[in-house]
Order: sequence, then structure tokens, then C-alpha cells
Amino acid sequence: MADIYEQRTYNSGEIGFGDKPGIVVVDYMTAFTDPKYPLGGAPLIERGVENTARLLDAARRAGVPIANCWTSYHSQREMPHWKVQAVREQFIHGAPGTELEPRTYDESYDMGLCKSGPSIFFETPVASFFAKERVDTVIVTGCVTSGCIRASTIDSFSRGFRTIVPEDCVGDHDEGPHRDNLRDVGRRYADIKDADTVIEYIEDWRKKNR
Amino acid sequence: MADIYEQRTYNSGEIGFGDKPGIVVVDYMTAFTDPKYPLGGAPLIERGVENTARLLDAARRAGVPIANCWTSYHSQREMPHWKVQAVREQFIHGAPGTELEPRTYDESYDMGLCKSGPSIFFETPVASFFAKERVDTVIVTGCVTSGCIRASTIDSFSRGFRTIVPEDCVGDHDEGPHRDNLRDVGRRYADIKDADTVIEYIEDWRKKNR
Amino acid sequence: MADIYEQRTYNSGEIGFGDKPGIVVVDYMTAFTDPKYPLGGAPLIERGVENTARLLDAARRAGVPIANCWTSYHSQREMPHWKVQAVREQFIHGAPGTELEPRTYDESYDMGLCKSGPSIFFETPVASFFAKERVDTVIVTGCVTSGCIRASTIDSFSRGFRTIVPEDCVGDHDEGPHRDNLRDVGRRYADIKDADTVIEYIEDWRKKNR
Amino acid sequence: MADIYEQRTYNSGEIGFGDKPGIVVVDYMTAFTDPKYPLGGAPLIERGVENTARLLDAARRAGVPIANCWTSYHSQREMPHWKVQAVREQFIHGAPGTELEPRTYDESYDMGLCKSGPSIFFETPVASFFAKERVDTVIVTGCVTSGCIRASTIDSFSRGFRTIVPEDCVGDHDEGPHRDNLRDVGRRYADIKDADTVIEYIEDWRKKNR
Repeated sequence: MADIYEQRTYNSGEIGFGDKPGIVVVDYMTAFTDPKYPLGGAPLIERGVENTARLLDAARRAGVPIANCWTSYHSQREMPHWKVQAVREQFIHGAPGTELEPRTYDESYDMGLCKSGPSIFFETPVASFFAKERVDTVIVTGCVTSGCIRASTIDSFSRGFRTIVPEDCVGDHDEGPHRDNLRDVGRRYADIKDADTVIEYIEDWRKKNR
Repeated sequence: MADIYEQRTYNSGEIGFGDKPGIVVVDYMTAFTDPKYPLGGAPLIERGVENTARLLDAARRAGVPIANCWTSYHSQREMPHWKVQAVREQFIHGAPGTELEPRTYDESYDMGLCKSGPSIFFETPVASFFAKERVDTVIVTGCVTSGCIRASTIDSFSRGFRTIVPEDCVGDHDEGPHRDNLRDVGRRYADIKDADTVIEYIEDWRKKNR
Repeated sequence: MADIYEQRTYNSGEIGFGDKPGIVVVDYMTAFTDPKYPLGGAPLIERGVENTARLLDAARRAGVPIANCWTSYHSQREMPHWKVQAVREQFIHGAPGTELEPRTYDESYDMGLCKSGPSIFFETPVASFFAKERVDTVIVTGCVTSGCIRASTIDSFSRGFRTIVPEDCVGDHDEGPHRDNLRDVGRRYADIKDADTVIEYIEDWRKKNR
Repeated sequence: MADIYEQRTYNSGEIGFGDKPGIVVVDYMTAFTDPKYPLGGAPLIERGVENTARLLDAARRAGVPIANCWTSYHSQREMPHWKVQAVREQFIHGAPGTELEPRTYDESYDMGLCKSGPSIFFETPVASFFAKERVDTVIVTGCVTSGCIRASTIDSFSRGFRTIVPEDCVGDHDEGPHRDNLRDVGRRYADIKDADTVIEYIEDWRKKNR
């Protein structure tokens, strides 16, 4: 299937890393990371949390800006027309499940924020923070690949950033949609890498910017 | 595969049509609709154009607001980091391929506009036009399903609209990604319908609002 | 001075109220409403709070959507380049002064939210909430007239809403800038009214929509 | 009057120039620059055009990104609720008055674009272009100070940029509102400078970046 797209000039050349990274951590909240919740505890998400935790350690040591978000609303009246019942009923400000995952959130360092749409950039201050910091390269981590990661990757691209998705730092409830979405964005908007490659880039960047 | 998601409460209930429709027509420009261009002339896109033309006839008779966009840039310097060579080289203001498809564009009626990202709502005046018109239901048409339709559907949802994708009014270069993306958005953000169902809704709406 | 602008066709005709109101309450937080803070306790702001409280009572009885915001940040690193020292040093998440004013905030009814720029619409979910509710008329209240009210009024206009500023529901540290800004926006973007006129409109609207 | 605001900690310290400039040229279109139009030919605007032309010469030699906009709409249906009759009736795509002023627009260099609200950043690709270029300092030029310049300055600030307004590069129909608005934004969001100071900064920047 890739061939049809490549014949039409999709996936022609890498974007590459730029001069200043920023990291977004999308919806690593306990509703997704704790198996006791309806959306929680998928193996690919667990894998994503662990790799993202390693990546964020390196990033914090290097002073890289990090935005770390959850999703919640005042009530059903204010939320968009979600077709996911667990989101409609449980993603309410202060409800259990809306806490940020402790393995990936550092309250003293990260810009923590509440978002209202699938994308971490949609109607949030993240892009303004990154503009102030002169970020040109956005590393996308979090969940779920076929939902909020897809949306955040599109928006990162649209906003002019070099966009990198380390595929072992993002997760989904199932492998099919995880792969389908990495395929779609990798053809158009983003480079698909892994945690180790991004950590190496961050450590090199740190040495150059000391 | 659907079952894993439905067990987790995805796809729980329809959104339904609201009180006032608006239509977006995404990237039905000759670069996609004319086979002489690298991205042009896929059968699903041809099918989409024909069904969208029927839908727009009904919509214009009913006075429904229509936004009809193409994608182009001043130069490569100003565009986001596209991995699609044909976009990078050919989507330049005024270049061949950037004209709106005549079967779906009515210059005297539609709000024609140039967009810069995959989504027709991203940094364009479409949502403001729809707010002024009190639109609450957005019908998404155009191409390609696994690119700009996916992005436009996410943004329509995020901006609070009831979002309907008539699947025979959107098209792609190949069937796999077309279906994968309808599946992903149909679980979360939008109702997947067909042209005839939407035309019927518009004609009913027109009778009620005469 | 008005004459030069009116000769050039500014201020030509009223906008008028529309079919569905929504209200924004901008920065009635204790940093502005309590005299113990550097920015707190100006008489025009005190007057604004009292009139807004009356207006909101009527609005909540009528079921009108209300968005009620404060401004704060994770740290100085994430905030824009404010030239106001009290904002830079004190508008930090959870700090004293960032609580919403109890006379104008009803936690059980209002959509409370944190904003990051002067405008309540800038990178916040307010416009999406209003789109879902089919709001076409935005009533702007809060402080300060020559800062966040000016910015919120511009954005309300830009987003396609009929915009009404009840001048006794907005306040400033001094009268000159208060009046200058009402003059500028009243010529271009908004109708300048008072609390009683808006309350009457809301009560009429309520009767029609019972 | 300044004293009341400074006692409350407004205007505390300069923002300063950053590492990479970008320039916005707002609404220098013939409707404002040619005296034959109702909004055209005010002396402060004429002065602004001449100083901006000098500034842009230096900027183009240095490779600084420039966004140059006009305002127009498909029809009155799509435009926001303007209270300025000349805008409502004459700011239509392709109408006389909507051409960019030739003294300040270089089609071969500048990103020319159509905007729909007062701010050049509102629902336009300008911020994405600047993010790609790593701009951190925005120079605001154009007209009118008490309208689109005020709006563009607020948005530049909100989006995280260091914002500089060279006061002799912006103009208005009358001096009072021109000064009032520079006062308001200079206290909060931007440094007020002049063309010569900005040209000197750009020439220094050019030498450092050769």
C-alpha cells in the first residue's frame, strides 16, 4: 500500500532535527495509565509511559521545555461531542483518572495544563511557550496514537515545527490503529523515530548548548 | 479490532444532526482532481467530487453556508515541513493545480479560501463565519481522507460542532487508509453517513426554515 | 475627535443583540478586586463587580452560558513578556490573588478557566463552548478596560460574535483609559450599553425561550 | 495619568530585542494610503508608510521574514460585524482599495496575505511562518494604531514574542487615539521605539548573522 503513496511523491525525504527541541506529553493521565479505568492499562501505553519517562529525564537535565497535559471539563455541557462514553462521564475537572501520571509528570519542572480537544496545541498556551523558547523541533509523546497523538502531530506540523514521533513513546489500545496512524503521519508530517534516537539528539544538543 | 475499542466505551451512541448545517469542501483543487498531476485522479476522489457536487447543489438551494478551500503558499520558505514532494514544489500561489475544481466550487456563492495546514479550520476564518451563521453541524467533504479530511474532522469536533462525514463525499489515493481513518474518527468525533442521507437532512432543514 | 472618525464612516449603525447570548467574565480575580494587592481595589473595578453580579444573577436564571476566567502561569518561564511587575511575580498558579472573586463566580454553574493572554478567547476553549451552544451575542464584563477587556472585545468581534460591552460592568484603574478604550471599540467592533439594558435583553430572551 | 498605572507596577522595565526579528506590515493597502478613499490619506499614516519603507529595505537586505497583509472578504455575509461602513462596503476581495501599497510591499520577497480580523495573527499562517523561522522578536508596523495595530500588538505579545512598535511606522486618522493606544500597549505588552532604532538593530543583527 505504501507504494501507491510513494509513487505520488509522499514520504520523500526526512525532515530532520532542528536547533531547539520541545517535548509534549499528551494525556498520560491515570485514566489511560491505570488498568482500573475503562480506558486504562493497554500494553502499548504502558510501554510508552516507560520510554517517555526515560526521555523526559534526559530532557529535564538538558533544560528542554516540556508541556504535559491532561483532558478534562467543567461538565458535559462544555465538552465537545465525544462519542467515547468514558470521556463524557469521567473526564470532569478533579475526578479520579484526571491526575497526571507520576512517572512522566514533574510538577516542579513541566508546564502542566488542561486541554479540551484531542490536540495538545488546540486552544492551549503550548505554542506560545514554545515560541518564547524558540523551539523549532517538537517531540510528540503520549496516548493514544489513533486519537490525541494523531491530532497533536498534525497541529505541531501545521504550526511550523519539525515534528518527531518516537514510536515507542506513544501508545494505543491496539496495534492496528497504532501502526496505521504512524504510517499516515510519517508519510506527510513527521519523522518516526524511537526513544533512544531522540535521547541521543537531546544529549548532543545539551553538550552543544552548555 | 473494533471490539477492543467498543469494550473500552468508544463509539457509544450517535452525535446526530443539529439545528443549522454548514459545509466544508477541503482541497478539491485540480492538483487532486485532474489525473495529469502527481496527486490527481484517484477513483475514490473522483467519486467524492461527484457526490459532493450533488450535495452542494442541495445546500446552495437551501442557503447553507459553504467554505471551499485550496492549499498554497507564497514559497517553500513559508510552508510547513511537508514530506510530500508534489506539495512542496507545486502548491505555490497561482501555480497550475491550485485552481478550485469547477464541479464543486461556485465562486458566486461559496466562501473560497486558501489554507496553510491540513485542516480547513487551522488559521482560517471558517469558524468565525460559521459562528456568525450559528452553524452547529459541520458536513466534511473533500480529500484526502487520510490527510486533510482527518485533520479537518478533528478540528470541527474540537471547535464544538456536530461533525458528519458522508463517506462517499471524501476520497483518498487508496482504500485502506480511507477506511482506517473513517474508522478512527467514527469511533470518537464524527458520524459517518452518506451523501443521500445528508441531502435529505438538508432538504428537510430547508423546508422547516422557509 | 469623534467627528474625524465619523466623517470616515466609523460608528455607522448599531450591531444589535442577536438570538443567543453568552457572557464572558474576564479577570475578576482577587488580585484585581481586593485592595490589598498592587492591582486591586480601583473604584471603577468595584463598580464593575457589583453590576456584573446583578447581570450574572439574571443570566444564570435564564440558562445563559457563562465563561469566567482568571490569569495565571506555571512560572515566569512560561508567561509572555509582561511589563507589569505584579503580573510577572504574582500571577502564578495557586498563588494568593488568583482566586476568582466570589461575588461574580458560581463554581456550580460557570465554566471557570485559566487564560494565558489578555483575551479570554486567546487559546482557551471558550469559543468552542459558545459554538456548541450556538451563541451569537457575547456580553463582555470584567477588567481592566484598557487591557484584557480591550483584547477580549477584539477577539469576540473577530470570531464573528455580536459584541456588547455594558460599560458599568467593566472597570479600570483610571477613568481616562477606561473611556478611551470604550470609544475605540465602540467605533469599530462593539455596542456600548449598560447593565440594565443587558439584563432587560436577557429577561426578554428568557421569556421567549421558555 | 501614567503615575496611577506605574504605582500599580505597570511599565516596569523594557522587554528588549531578542535573537531573531520578524516584521508584520498591517493593512498598508490603498484604502488607507490613497486619499481618494474614505479611510485614506491621513498624515500619520503617510508618515508611517515612508518610515516603514525604509525599515523594510533594511530588513529585506538582512533576510528578515516579513508578513504583509490586507483585509478583505468574499462578501458581507462572511465578514464580522464591522461598524465601519467603508469596511463593510468596500473591503471585498478584488475591489479597488484592497491592493497592497507598492511602497511597502515587495511581492517577490514578502509573504503577502489576506486577513479577516483586526489582528494580522488572527486566523492567519503568520505565527506558523515565524515559528518555522525561529522568530522571537516581532516588529509591528502599519495602520491604524487604534485598530489593527492595537490588535496585532496584543496578539504578538500573547503568542510569546518580544514585541516592538516603532511609533513612526504606525499611523492613525488622528493623534489622540494614536497616542492613547501606544500608551496602553507600552505599559503592558510592547516596547515603543522608532524606525531608526529598529533599523540599527536589524543592521547589527545582519552583521552578526552573516
